[in-house]
Amino acid sequence: MNDMNKEPEDFFEKIISVKLSDDGSAVNIIDQTLLPIEIKRIDLRTKEELWDAIKRLKVRGAPAIGVAAALGMAVFSQGITAADKEGFCREYKAISDYIATSRPTAVNLFWALNRMEQRLSEIKEQSKEDIVRGLYREAEDIRNEDIGISRNIGETGFLLLKEIRERTGHSPRILTHCNAGTLATAKYGTATAPMYMALEHGWKGSGMKVYCDETRPLLQGARLTAFELSEAGIDTTLQCDNMVSALMASGKIDIVFVGCDRVAANGDTANKIGTSGVAILAKHYNIPFYVCAPSSTIDKGTKSGEDIPIEMRSPGEVSEMWYSKRMAPENISVFNPAFDVTDHELITGFITESGIVSPPFKF
Amino acid sequence: MNDMNKEPEDFFEKIISVKLSDDGSAVNIIDQTLLPIEIKRIDLRTKEELWDAIKRLKVRGAPAIGVAAALGMAVFSQGITAADKEGFCREYKAISDYIATSRPTAVNLFWALNRMEQRLSEIKEQSKEDIVRGLYREAEDIRNEDIGISRNIGETGFLLLKEIRERTGHSPRILTHCNAGTLATAKYGTATAPMYMALEHGWKGSGMKVYCDETRPLLQGARLTAFELSEAGIDTTLQCDNMVSALMASGKIDIVFVGCDRVAANGDTANKIGTSGVAILAKHYNIPFYVCAPSSTIDKGTKSGEDIPIEMRSPGEVSEMWYSKRMAPENISVFNPAFDVTDHELITGFITESGIVSPPFKF
Repeated sequence: MNDMNKEPEDFFEKIISVKLSDDGSAVNIIDQTLLPIEIKRIDLRTKEELWDAIKRLKVRGAPAIGVAAALGMAVFSQGITAADKEGFCREYKAISDYIATSRPTAVNLFWALNRMEQRLSEIKEQSKEDIVRGLYREAEDIRNEDIGISRNIGETGFLLLKEIRERTGHSPRILTHCNAGTLATAKYGTATAPMYMALEHGWKGSGMKVYCDETRPLLQGARLTAFELSEAGIDTTLQCDNMVSALMASGKIDIVFVGCDRVAANGDTANKIGTSGVAILAKHYNIPFYVCAPSSTIDKGTKSGEDIPIEMRSPGEVSEMWYSKRMAPENISVFNPAFDVTDHELITGFITESGIVSPPFKF
Repeated sequence: MNDMNKEPEDFFEKIISVKLSDDGSAVNIIDQTLLPIEIKRIDLRTKEELWDAIKRLKVRGAPAIGVAAALGMAVFSQGITAADKEGFCREYKAISDYIATSRPTAVNLFWALNRMEQRLSEIKEQSKEDIVRGLYREAEDIRNEDIGISRNIGETGFLLLKEIRERTGHSPRILTHCNAGTLATAKYGTATAPMYMALEHGWKGSGMKVYCDETRPLLQGARLTAFELSEAGIDTTLQCDNMVSALMASGKIDIVFVGCDRVAANGDTANKIGTSGVAILAKHYNIPFYVCAPSSTIDKGTKSGEDIPIEMRSPGEVSEMWYSKRMAPENISVFNPAFDVTDHELITGFITESGIVSPPFKF
């Protein structure tokens, strides 16, 4: 992971989801609620601003939220005024508990906050400067580890893209669903990491194409993935979710990369609604279908997809356009699951930071 | 087809796509551009009003457009002032040619106008009253024949629904895509005809459920199908196109009914974009998939799906919400085919006015 800290490209400076501000006094994020219409970076200087940003999805995506919380705890620790470490820890804990209430279902948020608190308890130094320095270092470690995981996923995925180019003589055409991109992580994303690695390996303008499902109802594919990939200079095409079969039938797709929320021990995979349909179509058209995910996403405590609870969301997401214009009859019943489960038999492989794996997984 | 002219139910009075006004002096339509927010019936009294209604999709769906044009020609023939039949035919032809320009790709429009003109040429009577009466009769025949075709499709489809209820002990749960409903035809629709026949057979409140794909990008499923079915008192649920796999996986669907635009000689079927994906999912989950269509939709001149040209539509339909709010980056490439082709091997059967058929078709 040596070159992981090299100068980021202009592209990442502009659209990276979360980082420290240049002077380290704030968490700097891209406001994802304004995308793709407006690209606006904002500094979060107070715990209330960070809480609000997570709550309102200005920063979203499990890894990105975790990194934002960790960086935030370092920043806010500077304002703690306690005279001794015990007092410092008490004030720190109050801030951390407050941040934890911003998005109660975000496991990564709690994970990052716990890890920061654990680090705080381990710091032996007693001066506030030393404690704060230790917290900044831990937050940056969390961020850099996430970047390293994405890079490794990307390098492995890139080998598959190279293989396609060598075998077919044309640059790969990739399909992705929802946003498992740089906007959802510290950098590079998961499903998008192979594409960004391709750019770093000089594939800009190579003819590589990415097709993004718009991903109803919240359109993360249209608003976020199509945005970040086209900003990166990747040849990007947008289509409605129901156009995937026609795309595949016309021979336009060589490989599918998706992210995921949770992988069961048998390989069944929960991800954004629509993913299982894409996997079935890929199998029908004989197109490889890969799930890109940190190995931490594989949950040995969950036996199969049947054990993964599926959140049902508000009807208004489907029956109204952005809650502004009604597109369906009043009071119509709506089926609106947030996720679906892709059967492990439909998944060609899992691209993790440790290479491509398949069930049965080694834990 | 004896009971085809029985008193229409209140429901059809309210939402039928096109009929004569009560006094016969106008074409009465439901303005489909206002649905589902406003239910407004309007009288079209002039050729300009009919032209505009077809052009602006106030009346849409191939059979409905044909019926509207036929009824319109009867109505407008009343205003012809020529002294003799030759002069009448000349004035008539000018109006007919004008109406034909309202939607240049609508084959049914030309078919209906040609049939009316053919009838006019066959009318032996010379008085204007007799000629006009003959034209009204022909227009009503066109409408009634379309209703009869829908009824027959519906009765055959209803046998399948009864079989499901007898076999499983529960009322059928049906999936449909886009709008092949009463709004697209003279009455009953095609894919919806079995559901309306079920109501006529006393199935109201029986537990029969219909799941409607919203059908991006233009949302005909959400705006039109969900509207007309719920108006009819059918238990209707709306979902995004990418939720079909999750619906089927959870065992909520017993059968799929879709309409179609054109069937090739080998059974490959062009229909609204997304249909082929639904068919592949149905096969994966072992759910019967039926195409409901008049036998006139089977085109023996088209050998297979490869010979059906697919219209590509405007990017703005996908990248902007109703052309009002941008939901994707500026200038993003968009893949937006209007139709796709479902392979004949994925289709359980074709429900026509002459029963269920499969390729090779008898012509």
